[in-house]
Amino acid sequence: MAQNVAFIGLGVMGYPMAGHLAKAGHSVTIYNRSSEKAQNWLNEYSGTISLSPKEAAQNADFIFICVGNDDDLRQIMTGETGVLAGLTQGNIVVDHTTTSATVALEMALACAEKDVLFYDAPVSGGQAGAQNGLLTIMLGGDESHIDSVKSVVSAYARFSQLLGPVGSGQLAKMMNQICIAGIVQGLAEALHFGLNAGLDCAAVIEVISKGAAQSWQMENRHQTMLKGEYDFGFAVDWMRKDLDIALQEAKQNGSTLPLTALVDQFYAEVQKSGGKRWDTSSLLARLQK
Amino acid sequence: MAQNVAFIGLGVMGYPMAGHLAKAGHSVTIYNRSSEKAQNWLNEYSGTISLSPKEAAQNADFIFICVGNDDDLRQIMTGETGVLAGLTQGNIVVDHTTTSATVALEMALACAEKDVLFYDAPVSGGQAGAQNGLLTIMLGGDESHIDSVKSVVSAYARFSQLLGPVGSGQLAKMMNQICIAGIVQGLAEALHFGLNAGLDCAAVIEVISKGAAQSWQMENRHQTMLKGEYDFGFAVDWMRKDLDIALQEAKQNGSTLPLTALVDQFYAEVQKSGGKRWDTSSLLARLQK
Amino acid sequence: MAQNVAFIGLGVMGYPMAGHLAKAGHSVTIYNRSSEKAQNWLNEYSGTISLSPKEAAQNADFIFICVGNDDDLRQIMTGETGVLAGLTQGNIVVDHTTTSATVALEMALACAEKDVLFYDAPVSGGQAGAQNGLLTIMLGGDESHIDSVKSVVSAYARFSQLLGPVGSGQLAKMMNQICIAGIVQGLAEALHFGLNAGLDCAAVIEVISKGAAQSWQMENRHQTMLKGEYDFGFAVDWMRKDLDIALQEAKQNGSTLPLTALVDQFYAEVQKSGGKRWDTSSLLARLQK
Amino acid sequence: MAQNVAFIGLGVMGYPMAGHLAKAGHSVTIYNRSSEKAQNWLNEYSGTISLSPKEAAQNADFIFICVGNDDDLRQIMTGETGVLAGLTQGNIVVDHTTTSATVALEMALACAEKDVLFYDAPVSGGQAGAQNGLLTIMLGGDESHIDSVKSVVSAYARFSQLLGPVGSGQLAKMMNQICIAGIVQGLAEALHFGLNAGLDCAAVIEVISKGAAQSWQMENRHQTMLKGEYDFGFAVDWMRKDLDIALQEAKQNGSTLPLTALVDQFYAEVQKSGGKRWDTSSLLARLQK
Repeated sequence: MAQNVAFIGLGVMGYPMAGHLAKAGHSVTIYNRSSEKAQNWLNEYSGTISLSPKEAAQNADFIFICVGNDDDLRQIMTGETGVLAGLTQGNIVVDHTTTSATVALEMALACAEKDVLFYDAPVSGGQAGAQNGLLTIMLGGDESHIDSVKSVVSAYARFSQLLGPVGSGQLAKMMNQICIAGIVQGLAEALHFGLNAGLDCAAVIEVISKGAAQSWQMENRHQTMLKGEYDFGFAVDWMRKDLDIALQEAKQNGSTLPLTALVDQFYAEVQKSGGKRWDTSSLLARLQK
Repeated sequence: MAQNVAFIGLGVMGYPMAGHLAKAGHSVTIYNRSSEKAQNWLNEYSGTISLSPKEAAQNADFIFICVGNDDDLRQIMTGETGVLAGLTQGNIVVDHTTTSATVALEMALACAEKDVLFYDAPVSGGQAGAQNGLLTIMLGGDESHIDSVKSVVSAYARFSQLLGPVGSGQLAKMMNQICIAGIVQGLAEALHFGLNAGLDCAAVIEVISKGAAQSWQMENRHQTMLKGEYDFGFAVDWMRKDLDIALQEAKQNGSTLPLTALVDQFYAEVQKSGGKRWDTSSLLARLQK
Repeated sequence: MAQNVAFIGLGVMGYPMAGHLAKAGHSVTIYNRSSEKAQNWLNEYSGTISLSPKEAAQNADFIFICVGNDDDLRQIMTGETGVLAGLTQGNIVVDHTTTSATVALEMALACAEKDVLFYDAPVSGGQAGAQNGLLTIMLGGDESHIDSVKSVVSAYARFSQLLGPVGSGQLAKMMNQICIAGIVQGLAEALHFGLNAGLDCAAVIEVISKGAAQSWQMENRHQTMLKGEYDFGFAVDWMRKDLDIALQEAKQNGSTLPLTALVDQFYAEVQKSGGKRWDTSSLLARLQK
Repeated sequence: MAQNVAFIGLGVMGYPMAGHLAKAGHSVTIYNRSSEKAQNWLNEYSGTISLSPKEAAQNADFIFICVGNDDDLRQIMTGETGVLAGLTQGNIVVDHTTTSATVALEMALACAEKDVLFYDAPVSGGQAGAQNGLLTIMLGGDESHIDSVKSVVSAYARFSQLLGPVGSGQLAKMMNQICIAGIVQGLAEALHFGLNAGLDCAAVIEVISKGAAQSWQMENRHQTMLKGEYDFGFAVDWMRKDLDIALQEAKQNGSTLPLTALVDQFYAEVQKSGGKRWDTSSLLARLQK
């Protein structure tokens, strides 16, 4: 069913996501801080431009947000021209930003005062997933309207799932990033070791990817790692932002994450050596220095 | 083509592996330090028992070995009643023990003096893989006879691959274990975090296993980890033996393995709390204490 | 020279510090959130109670603050009844709280608008140091009035030093805590090892404290560590607060602190096992579990 | 009381140690693998050269050894021309090499068969300590003859202490090195942080060395660390040898040494970047890259 939707934040993720909504037949109102990107989007897809988050929200039943971090989200939502100022009872806000669970709860409370449901909905699948409409979406929020949310996001998601109350999507995303930290550092150490041992690492990976050492990262990143190619993918700067959120949340819920904390520091070394924009798999570059 | 084969070492791995050889029609001579196990094996499969590694070797063209560690291998191979004393020109020795690359080279040299080829051939797939004949085999050794080796081991391997000269199989196995160390610790921290956050972790894993955080360990171990079940699988004691080999080899080849070294210490804590025989996934138990 | 001073925050540190100022002959106006402590202080020392930080500031030339963290400091300083509202040109604010360098700069700027100098002045020496007037003070701020600041704080400090512009005191304190993290974890591992090895650890410490392994922690904490006594000293909760500040600052200035990040996680394990209030030396308890 | 002593191993430590024995009036017979060093020593001090460890032992009541590692010690002690072959009942062997506790026990047993006492006696104080006769000696062995041992070693030791049965000296030395690993990495991170923060680190150290962050390393190494000078002191290669011994021993006695294992890997990175011969304080160089 075609809906009136707003999409706020046309970055490398949001731009194609909003595009998929338009191609799926929804009426899309867009807002972006820099208007140039919004103009480009309008040249490519059909929709309406708005001059503020508030105005975007006023035009829509579903408001999607995809910005950078907690502070960006707060800025988009609050203030005179913010989303909250434009909401009407019955609207649904879906936030695709990776944020803390705290800010998700904060926003959900603010929305509740307007009889509006808020869903935190961080994604995985990266830029390629956004472009190809194959994202995975981790949802936190109310069960009552989850079907309509899943129906709309199906324009760019191959899989989405409600994981619990508001904040659960963000917490799940943190689990995702914690797993990746361990996998990538382990893989990097293995390849570093293999290279130093003079092995044909691609041949070894072909064998060991058939068993208990297998991982998505191993299958999808070992070739570029072996070539030392890191100018693509999910940037180290973003990974550190996400790990910081996870480490802070762990402090709140009493978890200990020694490997995560350590790998976060190794990413700091990657940043120092010029890798702020490199893919997360660049932990190997640090070892090979 | 049916062969005369010897199988030395009827532990949890070797016992079913030798069984698969018998069922595949090979003439199998067995040797085991404790003769009781050898007797059990003979009750279950058809073959011949021998009283020493030397005698086993004398009866065979292919000699397979699957014992505990470097020292066990040296003991089986050398001395008056050792394998080396029973070898004839043209024999082939295949060692399935996980050992250092150094001892593999040492044994290959000793075999070469008798015009015998030595292949290091550590396996992955665990006890279940051995029982179901679905092991993966990492081979190091001479290219000339690799086809006949692969043909015989196909009785219990779904996949085997030559990865380079003698020692390469062991080095590949080290890469395998290094990868697992990172994956399992990352997964353990993620589940620990999720449990503390009150998430439905099984539901989260269903979602995140579709993307960049996916791993064999995640898919095959998260359920038992969430139940706190560790009385199965690949034991922590064995994992520490393997990581020690990798860390010592890393010293030789100039690799740095910070995560591997740290996780090895976490396994030491698992051992202390009674987990010597627990599956490697028991790193979660340490965090949940 | 006797001065009119205000002291805000009568915790375990501030209470005796303010007492030393009174005993040194200064006219002391006190303020504490819970008035009971202020009343106790007045029973013990001579001075004046005030009902708000603003009122305290109005009565004084030097305003000393010793509260819990960044947020506490902001709360004390700002708002209708805050210190800033009570400042007069020429006043000097000295903050003994361990905070981020950022909040120190923020407060210094706010003070500057009133022609008031702000010094960040975190201390080391603990509760005993405060009681005995033997603290060490790390100062950040303007050189022009450092002598008068040092003169007043000499009531409770055996040593104080200007280390650079505003924020430098806090940054120095972070260096202090980073050093301690490494020292204590190393010492804990050594004692853990020695106990497991059956050594007379006190005898060993007597020997090795004469050389390159010596540290203040070794000399002053090994006895209580060996007895498993941790109900005293600088609490793990406070240490984690301080390490968090250091780790966040490191992110800003591009430093990598792998050991600090890891030990911070070990302190999280101490917290979980009931050690929130234990001395920082309790890292040994974690290993001995 | 002047004694007949043998000194085997004239490296950077042994050379001056043997010299102090000669200057103290003992009759010294020396042995060194490369005879050139022995010749140099004879030009500088008075004594007798011997052609084998056995011959050296035959000439002496006390046999001192200072070589590189376990294997060196075994080589010096055993075989046709080894020390054991030259021992007579009542002799005393004192080994200053830093070795495993296992080899110390092994040698003590072999000596016991000849009614000879063996003391393990690793030292601390470095090359400077050896030259100035200011070493500290950690002794393991029998109480009965400890006074005569201490009397002779007082020629080059300012302090020596019996710490328990054979092996205790080595175990104490391991504790020493574990402590240093934590101290130096913590200090390196603090200085790295301070440099990035733009602090006058020498001034900060002056302040924080007065309290709980103080250490011998801080006082004696911060200046050279801040200058990036590492061409002196106790070499990283030797430190890794010692840490390996400690980590292996920890495996035997059930200790977990996460920081030690991690810092050992950081030293591996220092080795890779050309620092095999640098002082242990060079962990800072790794962070500053």
